Amino acid sequence: MEISYDGTAFSGWGIQPVLRTVQGELEKALATIFSGHLPAPTLTVAGRTDAGVHALGQVAHLDLTAEQWLSLDAPLRGKKTGGATNRTASLTRMLNGLAGHRGEIHVREITMAPDGFDARFSAIWRRYSYRIADFQAVRNPLMRNHTLWYPANLDVTEMNRAAASLTGLHDWASYCKPRERASTIRTLQEFTWHRSQDGVLIAHLRADAFCHNMVRALVGATVAVGEGKLASTDLVDLRDERARTSVFKVLPPTGLALMEVGYPEDADLRSRAEASRARRDLATAGTEQPSLTSERLSD
Amino acid sequence: MEISYDGTAFSGWGIQPVLRTVQGELEKALATIFSGHLPAPTLTVAGRTDAGVHALGQVAHLDLTAEQWLSLDAPLRGKKTGGATNRTASLTRMLNGLAGHRGEIHVREITMAPDGFDARFSAIWRRYSYRIADFQAVRNPLMRNHTLWYPANLDVTEMNRAAASLTGLHDWASYCKPRERASTIRTLQEFTWHRSQDGVLIAHLRADAFCHNMVRALVGATVAVGEGKLASTDLVDLRDERARTSVFKVLPPTGLALMEVGYPEDADLRSRAEASRARRDLATAGTEQPSLTSERLSD
Repeated sequence: MEISYDGTAFSGWGIQPVLRTVQGELEKALATIFSGHLPAPTLTVAGRTDAGVHALGQVAHLDLTAEQWLSLDAPLRGKKTGGATNRTASLTRMLNGLAGHRGEIHVREITMAPDGFDARFSAIWRRYSYRIADFQAVRNPLMRNHTLWYPANLDVTEMNRAAASLTGLHDWASYCKPRERASTIRTLQEFTWHRSQDGVLIAHLRADAFCHNMVRALVGATVAVGEGKLASTDLVDLRDERARTSVFKVLPPTGLALMEVGYPEDADLRSRAEASRARRDLATAGTEQPSLTSERLSD
Repeated sequence: MEISYDGTAFSGWGIQPVLRTVQGELEKALATIFSGHLPAPTLTVAGRTDAGVHALGQVAHLDLTAEQWLSLDAPLRGKKTGGATNRTASLTRMLNGLAGHRGEIHVREITMAPDGFDARFSAIWRRYSYRIADFQAVRNPLMRNHTLWYPANLDVTEMNRAAASLTGLHDWASYCKPRERASTIRTLQEFTWHRSQDGVLIAHLRADAFCHNMVRALVGATVAVGEGKLASTDLVDLRDERARTSVFKVLPPTGLALMEVGYPEDADLRSRAEASRARRDLATAGTEQPSLTSERLSD
């Protein structure tokens, strides 16, 4: 399923006790929809977004039992339905009616997954965007829920140059919030800044996967360049020191959105998922040997 | 001053007792800013938007006494300021700090008005837009505060044809909520529908002025055409009956925003304002003789 959400009022994607999360709302809806065929399905997601982070192209999958799948044929609006397309459309409508009634979460589409598909482990890249309104005149109250209002005017040419200098396969320890036994080696495939037609600064970042806080740290570092506080070359030097630093800020989640997740051709889905899972298991067992030439964990 | 606001949580522009309005918030801030030089200035606005309606290019003016104007020279962040540009910039910052601290209201810019300028009576046209997400896949939770989610798929070609058939100088009584002694004769200069790159349907409407509820009625009527409930020719017939009807819906304020207000060249500001005021006075006195060839009231 492809999902969009306004993360403002959520404590992130991942389900947590007490706190309101996107996964929590969707799984509560699934428990209602499949209340006659428990246990209810759970969701596996491509990008576990943090509190306050948005998504337009989040991807998750769920596995249904044969009974659950057929239960979606139940009459809807008095019409008897049937067939895969009707079942996924019916599930989409029910989820949007239950979890999306306020419009904060919207399931855009549900389709049958190809054989071997895993929303998390089959993914080969994630693309994020970050929006900043710097000049007074470009601040738009209608977009304030997903645009950071920055209190200084920024030089987009310098920011874009700094962004381009950072791409490639590197150890991003300087730009990641450390997590035990998690690798910080990633391939930053794309990182650009441009000023959109309406004057808003937009960053696009694509990587095989991002480690924790990496997008917001990279954005914060390039903003420091745009403000004249750091030089473009500083960011590469900081990266190559492979140690956390406080010379730039990790920016707030407001401006950040997961835009798109990339998957390989159907035939490669299973092998990609198996490879990702194997590396995750190695890392969890504490035996991973990070190497700049090997492929990395997928989230 | 040029003002943007998210109208969702406001009971419209116009100040009202108890209710939270955009004018109310801004005038409260002005009373604080000029607390040493009362009475505080009040605002005259180009388009008095209804409850829930947004604005990106609202225009208002205020008159300051010489003392109020000079009081804006007060030191700001320790720096002594002076001169017209610094005073308007200082007023902008203070208003945004007081009325705009939540980001719902944002004063984009304040400039010295040319001689004879009146935000309401000098205006020669108002432009509004209306946004609708019809297909499931184009509904974006991040834009839900200013986009109507419509429960049926709409035919934009038919809607655009219907819109084009309506333009011109006409009596819009069928599309207006009646107000005592207010004329319903207006020139609808532009009315188009298109589907934007991201799939959202956007209407653009421009008129010398709109009568009450006119934009939302026109949008609702063309949506009925897009849904196949009315024919394009029905809308012209309904218009020419000059009587309110219930065959189409007045759509909710969610999708509506005042985008821009047009003014004549500086030299014509005063004569335009005087002509508008004279017609308003005639109408208020109940002696106005609406005629399809005369210019109409400006709001």
